[in-house]
Amino acid sequence: MSKKEEKRHIYPLVTASSTFDAVILCDGDYPSHAIPLSILNHAKYLICCDGAGMHHILHGGTPDAIVGDGDSLPEDFKRRYADILHQVSEQEDNDQTKATRFCIAKGFRRIAYLGSTGKREDHTLGNISLLIRYMKDFHLDVTMVTDHGYFTPASGVQDFDSFVHQQISIYNFGCTQLAGKGFKWNPYAYQELWQGALNEAIGDEVTIEADGNYLLFRTFEPKMPK
Amino acid sequence: MSKKEEKRHIYPLVTASSTFDAVILCDGDYPSHAIPLSILNHAKYLICCDGAGMHHILHGGTPDAIVGDGDSLPEDFKRRYADILHQVSEQEDNDQTKATRFCIAKGFRRIAYLGSTGKREDHTLGNISLLIRYMKDFHLDVTMVTDHGYFTPASGVQDFDSFVHQQISIYNFGCTQLAGKGFKWNPYAYQELWQGALNEAIGDEVTIEADGNYLLFRTFEPKMPK
Repeated sequence: MSKKEEKRHIYPLVTASSTFDAVILCDGDYPSHAIPLSILNHAKYLICCDGAGMHHILHGGTPDAIVGDGDSLPEDFKRRYADILHQVSEQEDNDQTKATRFCIAKGFRRIAYLGSTGKREDHTLGNISLLIRYMKDFHLDVTMVTDHGYFTPASGVQDFDSFVHQQISIYNFGCTQLAGKGFKWNPYAYQELWQGALNEAIGDEVTIEADGNYLLFRTFEPKMPK
Repeated sequence: MSKKEEKRHIYPLVTASSTFDAVILCDGDYPSHAIPLSILNHAKYLICCDGAGMHHILHGGTPDAIVGDGDSLPEDFKRRYADILHQVSEQEDNDQTKATRFCIAKGFRRIAYLGSTGKREDHTLGNISLLIRYMKDFHLDVTMVTDHGYFTPASGVQDFDSFVHQQISIYNFGCTQLAGKGFKWNPYAYQELWQGALNEAIGDEVTIEADGNYLLFRTFEPKMPK
């Protein structure tokens, strides 16, 4: 077996056939791109965050569980779906994290998040940054899939599948050393969130070598040069 | 004059009649809420970032300038609007920052950003975090207005107008000490972006006391208790 073949690609591309132990649908923008829609429709176990449960049912779907504080759900909806409704009223965690704790209790480790962005930007920022917490504190393997691409939290030295002209953004969460291979511009230990945005893969794999946690965003589509 | 009346409110609420030296329209989601639309339509000087120029003209608007690398503009559009088109081809800055540098050259200091969020989430994250740079490095007074509320970068001890049940999120950019008055939950020097999200004003003013930079998001609408 060649050196290349032995190599383990820990972070594959996300496609319409990607599978996860569970899918969490949050109440941001309902997915419209074919890839998150396929992940949603083929979920082995689907948890909807509060109002997202109602939206998904209106879209013809059937959640396995609805988790949240119940704030955004009408009383008749709560009565009708009482058997799958898990109301969690504590104030420390937002609905995305409540749904994540529900997954942990069920033994799910590989989780995809959909509908976590869109609508209020402060929710979007919070939900994205929580991915680092889910990896670091909850020891989960998580991916947030949007209509444009996917966020993956990672730590240390890791390989990520890519393709030529895939747009990749790197967000440094506390690394003092950070380097990369396979990128158009050399990554470094960015001090600001905007500095690592809008990089690009030059081939079918990128590597990050860092001494801490970071978040990668990879797009579905390549950006073709003019 | 009472103590209250003497007090200067440095960061007012953003309303449909808020005015700025210049408005920058970026190429994320085109504004749909009445407040950013009013700011757009009453701009004293309007700079559109690249593709946003085309979108704004399609919406019946007239930019004063279009700034960007020209990548997303068709050749016939570039010829037709050559008199207001300022092509900047350097790769260090994104289009939002190119438009900001254009404002600085014109002497504009109070700038509102519209259309900076939506579409690709890595652009959204980058554009939001750049507000800290514009304040800290460019010494500008900037506000990013979305369809849901507005981001304001600030530093040190500052007062912000608010209203009861206004949702406020606080993002710490490097403060080791951070405290607040007028919030439902006491702010602290958050280590993670998600920790300061989803706070709430209890009256018509909040104060932040910090030893560094931070970003506030305030919503247009109150969140009413059930």
